[in-house]
Amino acid sequence: MSFQKQSPKARPAFARWMSSGNDITQQFLSIGGRPDMVSLAGGLPAAELYPVAEIAQASERALARFGSVALEYGPCEGLPALREAIAARISASAGRRFGPENVLLTTGAMQGLDLLGKALIDPGDLIVAQFPTYLGALDAWRPRQPRYEKLDWSCEGQGFEAALRQAKFVYAVPNYSNPTGVLVPQQQRAALLDKVLAAGTWLVEDDPYLPLQLDGEAGPSILAAHAASHPEGPYDGPVVYLGTLSKSLVPGLRVGWVVAEAGMIATLALAKQSTDLSSSMLTQAVALELIEGGFKAGHIPQIVATYRDRRDALCAAASQHLAEWFSWEIPPGGMFVWMKARSPEIDTNALYAFALEEKVAFVPSSVFDPDGGLTDAMRVNFTRSSPEVIVEGVRRLERAVRRYLAARPGRAA
Amino acid sequence: MSFQKQSPKARPAFARWMSSGNDITQQFLSIGGRPDMVSLAGGLPAAELYPVAEIAQASERALARFGSVALEYGPCEGLPALREAIAARISASAGRRFGPENVLLTTGAMQGLDLLGKALIDPGDLIVAQFPTYLGALDAWRPRQPRYEKLDWSCEGQGFEAALRQAKFVYAVPNYSNPTGVLVPQQQRAALLDKVLAAGTWLVEDDPYLPLQLDGEAGPSILAAHAASHPEGPYDGPVVYLGTLSKSLVPGLRVGWVVAEAGMIATLALAKQSTDLSSSMLTQAVALELIEGGFKAGHIPQIVATYRDRRDALCAAASQHLAEWFSWEIPPGGMFVWMKARSPEIDTNALYAFALEEKVAFVPSSVFDPDGGLTDAMRVNFTRSSPEVIVEGVRRLERAVRRYLAARPGRAA
Repeated sequence: MSFQKQSPKARPAFARWMSSGNDITQQFLSIGGRPDMVSLAGGLPAAELYPVAEIAQASERALARFGSVALEYGPCEGLPALREAIAARISASAGRRFGPENVLLTTGAMQGLDLLGKALIDPGDLIVAQFPTYLGALDAWRPRQPRYEKLDWSCEGQGFEAALRQAKFVYAVPNYSNPTGVLVPQQQRAALLDKVLAAGTWLVEDDPYLPLQLDGEAGPSILAAHAASHPEGPYDGPVVYLGTLSKSLVPGLRVGWVVAEAGMIATLALAKQSTDLSSSMLTQAVALELIEGGFKAGHIPQIVATYRDRRDALCAAASQHLAEWFSWEIPPGGMFVWMKARSPEIDTNALYAFALEEKVAFVPSSVFDPDGGLTDAMRVNFTRSSPEVIVEGVRRLERAVRRYLAARPGRAA
Repeated sequence: MSFQKQSPKARPAFARWMSSGNDITQQFLSIGGRPDMVSLAGGLPAAELYPVAEIAQASERALARFGSVALEYGPCEGLPALREAIAARISASAGRRFGPENVLLTTGAMQGLDLLGKALIDPGDLIVAQFPTYLGALDAWRPRQPRYEKLDWSCEGQGFEAALRQAKFVYAVPNYSNPTGVLVPQQQRAALLDKVLAAGTWLVEDDPYLPLQLDGEAGPSILAAHAASHPEGPYDGPVVYLGTLSKSLVPGLRVGWVVAEAGMIATLALAKQSTDLSSSMLTQAVALELIEGGFKAGHIPQIVATYRDRRDALCAAASQHLAEWFSWEIPPGGMFVWMKARSPEIDTNALYAFALEEKVAFVPSSVFDPDGGLTDAMRVNFTRSSPEVIVEGVRRLERAVRRYLAARPGRAA
C-alpha cells in the first residue's frame, strides 16, 4: 500500500485523525484484487447473483419515468418517491406510520454512519458501541475523534447506565452482527431500549444484514419494537435505523437509508448537504423501480439459499481443518463466522502475515477494537466465494496456522 | 424550513459546528421547489438540455460492457477505466503525463471539498480562500472548524506570505469564479502559484465551470501551467484540481474528480473510504461511456450558446431595471452575474425577504463570507431559466428593491 501518513516534508501535515488508523485495515483492503488469493476477508455479496439484466431494464424504465428529474441534483434528502417507498416498508414492519420526513437516502449505509458522526460528535464525545465493533463504523467516526465504551447487552451495572447518560449515541448491529454474526435476542434488545430511553440518548441500529436470514426469522428491529409500542402521532423515539440495498441486491447502486424522527432526519440532511449536496438521483430511481416491481423480494430467497450452502461449507471445512485452534458459533444469518482462538497465545495479526503467504485472507479481530487490542479472533466471510473456493481457503488457513505456530519464538527457542 | 438546531431537550446536543451555519443558506435552499417562484438563486444547469436518451443508451452499453463489475462496491478510488480517461484528458491539457494514480473519483466536486477538509483540517487550522468564497466550500469545511484568510490575487504584502506559510491550503476558483464570475488572468495565477510554492502549502483549484466558456477561451488551469513547467517524472506539485460533469453534462450522475500528486490521492482515498466506501460504479461506467463516445464534447457548444443568450438576456434586463442600484461586470463564462450595490446602505439579506414576497430568489452575498458580514451584493444565476423567465425575475427584483428602499427605517422616519 503506497499510502503516506505524512505529507511530503515541504507540505502541511494531514489532520491528526489520519495518523490514528489501524494499519491492518489498509493491508487487508489492498489484497482484494489479487486473483491468486482466496479472500475470506471482505463483506462482499456473491457477484454472480447480481441481477445485471434486471438493472439494465430498471434503468431504462427509470429514465422513461423520471426523465430529466433523474439527472438533476436531487433534494439532499433523496428522491421523494423512494423516500415514500422506504417509509411504507418500515411502516408495514413496525405497525405504525412513518412518512418520507422520517427517511434520508444515503450513499450506502456507510454514509449514514459518516453523517451521524458529523452531526453528533465533537472530539472526545462518547459512543457506546457494540463490541467488537464494525470496522467501517470505527473508520467513519475516526475523523470526529470520539471515545468508546463497550455496549453491555446484559445492560447491567451502574457504570453502564452512567455511560449511556454521557453518550452521544449507542451503536448496535442486533441482526447477525458484524463481525460476530450474533442475532441479539429480543429480550436483550428490549432491555437496551429501556435503558436508552431512561438515559435520554440516541440508539443507532445498523441493520444491513436483515435480508440474510439463513435459519428462521430475525424478529422485529428495535425501531419496529419501539414504534409499535407508540403507534400514534409522528415517531419521536430515539432509534436511528440504518438500512441498505448493498447486501440484498447490489452494492454498486450505493443506495442506503436512515429512518428516524423528523428532526434528526433534517439535521442529517444538513450534514449531507455539506458532504455531497445529494446522492445520484439516477441510482435512486433505479432502486425504486426494482423495489416497486417486487424484484428485490423475489430475489432474496435465491440469495439466502446460496449463502446457507456456503456457510455450511465453511463451517464443515473449519471443523475438519481449524477446530484444533479455533471455536465458533454457527451464525443464523449474515455474512460472517467469528472464529475465536482457543488459546490467547494465538495472535491473529501475526497469523495474518502467514495467511497472506499461503494466499488466503481473513479479517483479524484487532480492526474491530477501537484500541486495537483484540487479537485472538478472526472474521471469516462465506458469501463471496463458491463452496469449493471456501474449502480451499480453509485448507490454506490450516497451513498458515501450522506454520505460524511452528515459527513462534517460544517454539523456536 | 423545519430544521432544528438543537436536539429535543431530552437528547444529546448536536456537534458544535451545526450551530455555526448561516440561516440564509437554508432559507434559499428551501424555496427551490416552489413553482410560482422565479429562482435566480441556484447554480443549476438548464434541465431541458439534459441528454436523457443518450444516458439511457449509455446505461445499457455500460451494463453490457462491465456486467456485474458495474454493480460492485468499487475500489474507493473509482472505476479504473474512468480514472484512466480523466488522467488522459488532463495529460492532454497539461502537456505532461498524469496517470490513474493521480485521479480520485468523487460524488461530484463537492465531495472533493469534503474530503480535503477531512484530510487536512483540524479545528482552528487556516484556509486562505478566494473571497467571496463558494458557499458549498464553506459548508463542506464547517464541520472541521477552520479559520479563514482572504486570498489576495495581487499576492502582495508580508501578511499574505505569512498566511500562506501557515495555511493548510489555498482555495481558488480561477475560471468564472463562484460567486463573482471573474476569470482570473494568467499572470495573477502564475504569481499565486509562485507564492504557494515558496510557502510550501497546497493549492486547491476548483474548476467546475471550465466548460462554460461563453466569450473566448479560459486559458490553461493552474494545474496545467504548473505541470507543463515540470514535464518529467510523476507529478509532485502542490495543485489539487477539482473537476466535475455536473455543470457540463448532468449533475445527477454525481461524478466529479480530484487530480493531484499520488500521495495526496491516496490520502483522500483513505478519507473517502471512511465516508462512503465508494461511489456508484454504475454512474461512473455511464460517465465513461459518454466521455469515450465523444458525446460530452459535442454537447458543450449547444450548452454554451444557450447560456450565452441567457446571460445576455439577464444583463440587458438588469441594465433596464436594476442599474440604478447595482453595478456588475459581464462574466465571460460560468453561471452567475455578481451584482454589487452602488450604496452600502443596501443590505441584500434584508432585500431578500422582499424578493421572496415578489416571488423571485437570488443568493445574498453574506453566504459567501465566512463571517457573514458581506451584505452589499447578490449572486444572480442565468443558466437555469429561459430568457423570458429571467426577464420576469429581473422585473420582480426591481419591484422588490423599490419596496425595500421605501420600507427602510431611514425612509420611514
